[in-house]
Amino acid sequence: MIAHKHILGTFDESLAALRNNVLMMAGLTERSLERAMKGLVNRDDNICATAIADDEEIDQLEKQIDKDGVDILLRFQPVASDLRRVVAAMKLSSNLERMADMATTIARRARKLNRHPPLPEVELIRPMYEHAMSMFKDSVDAFVREDVDLGRAVVPRDEKLDQLNRAASHKLVERMAQDPDQLRGYLNLIFIGRCLERVGDHATNIAEDAVYAAAAEDIRHQTAAASV
Amino acid sequence: MIAHKHILGTFDESLAALRNNVLMMAGLTERSLERAMKGLVNRDDNICATAIADDEEIDQLEKQIDKDGVDILLRFQPVASDLRRVVAAMKLSSNLERMADMATTIARRARKLNRHPPLPEVELIRPMYEHAMSMFKDSVDAFVREDVDLGRAVVPRDEKLDQLNRAASHKLVERMAQDPDQLRGYLNLIFIGRCLERVGDHATNIAEDAVYAAAAEDIRHQTAAASV
Repeated sequence: MIAHKHILGTFDESLAALRNNVLMMAGLTERSLERAMKGLVNRDDNICATAIADDEEIDQLEKQIDKDGVDILLRFQPVASDLRRVVAAMKLSSNLERMADMATTIARRARKLNRHPPLPEVELIRPMYEHAMSMFKDSVDAFVREDVDLGRAVVPRDEKLDQLNRAASHKLVERMAQDPDQLRGYLNLIFIGRCLERVGDHATNIAEDAVYAAAAEDIRHQTAAASV
Repeated sequence: MIAHKHILGTFDESLAALRNNVLMMAGLTERSLERAMKGLVNRDDNICATAIADDEEIDQLEKQIDKDGVDILLRFQPVASDLRRVVAAMKLSSNLERMADMATTIARRARKLNRHPPLPEVELIRPMYEHAMSMFKDSVDAFVREDVDLGRAVVPRDEKLDQLNRAASHKLVERMAQDPDQLRGYLNLIFIGRCLERVGDHATNIAEDAVYAAAAEDIRHQTAAASV
């Protein structure tokens, strides 16, 4: 499943193979997050189990991408934008691996929730999930298309996700205080919200790396005034 | 404060300057975690504020290290162990940045705790903190001394930290159920425990990168049987 052909290819072929593995990894990570959310909403332990099982393939892809990236640096000693593309692909895979870990955590907590009566507050999670996934998809698109404007536009969207998470956590803590019998359930939902907030952080990192790869500009850790 | 001299130096000088910045960043990150913990245990808002303020300098160091790392790759096109050392320094700085974020989160939650009566359960946090910091220090040592054995030895210690966190969370959830008035306080302690658990994850990453830099071996994501 992993592209190995580039071992004897040109730089362009090797870079294309590296990027293909990154895209495959992004696809698997997206699927894993979708499955975790489906397992949560549909209360389906089997779908949760597939999300958890996906993680191993994603971990192995990360190792392969790092290895291939270093091989490309060694063999071709790329400069300028070519070097940045290789470095960005390796960073992207590291962010994808952490997102896949979030999918695993969500699926594990969903399975715990499935052992107890349903909590209607699971609906608080859906808008966070949708916002985080849309950031994720756009950040990967920005990387693939080397679209600097799209990459830049993803970064400020993280603020909205943080707000959604704060608001959801606040409500869940209130419900917890009113109904201590469901305490562990609400706590699981709070942690799932936190996972989605971190998916947004990783999408932000990917968008920043996409801008770096395409425009040689490091837009991380800018002040609010400077980043608009 | 950041070492810039290497711009005109040899590869060895440039690499030494890069590593010095990584070590400075590690020192600041360690100090920030120490301050966050002191702010929590001593209920001192001012120390919490210094931990939070540290974060900006650490963020800027991360950007500088990434920039210098790419400059070194471009100018010297290092191979083999030299290339691995540069890549490992850049990865290390990314892990340090995330650890410093954890220090900030701990300090923020400590300030929230300081607004309410003290919770004796804060003592559950101390063994986690000590375990996480010892992993952190050893992982940085493994990187500095290129000590493969020490790097390998750090990785399995993460399991103990995970156990400490599970046990502490379990107790805190129980206390929460018994004393719903202190619900937000216990929740803050649970999140602080989770931050320390993640400090251990990043220390593990650093130890793995140290092994990679020194021995060209990728020991990430191995099965339990294979990693011992």
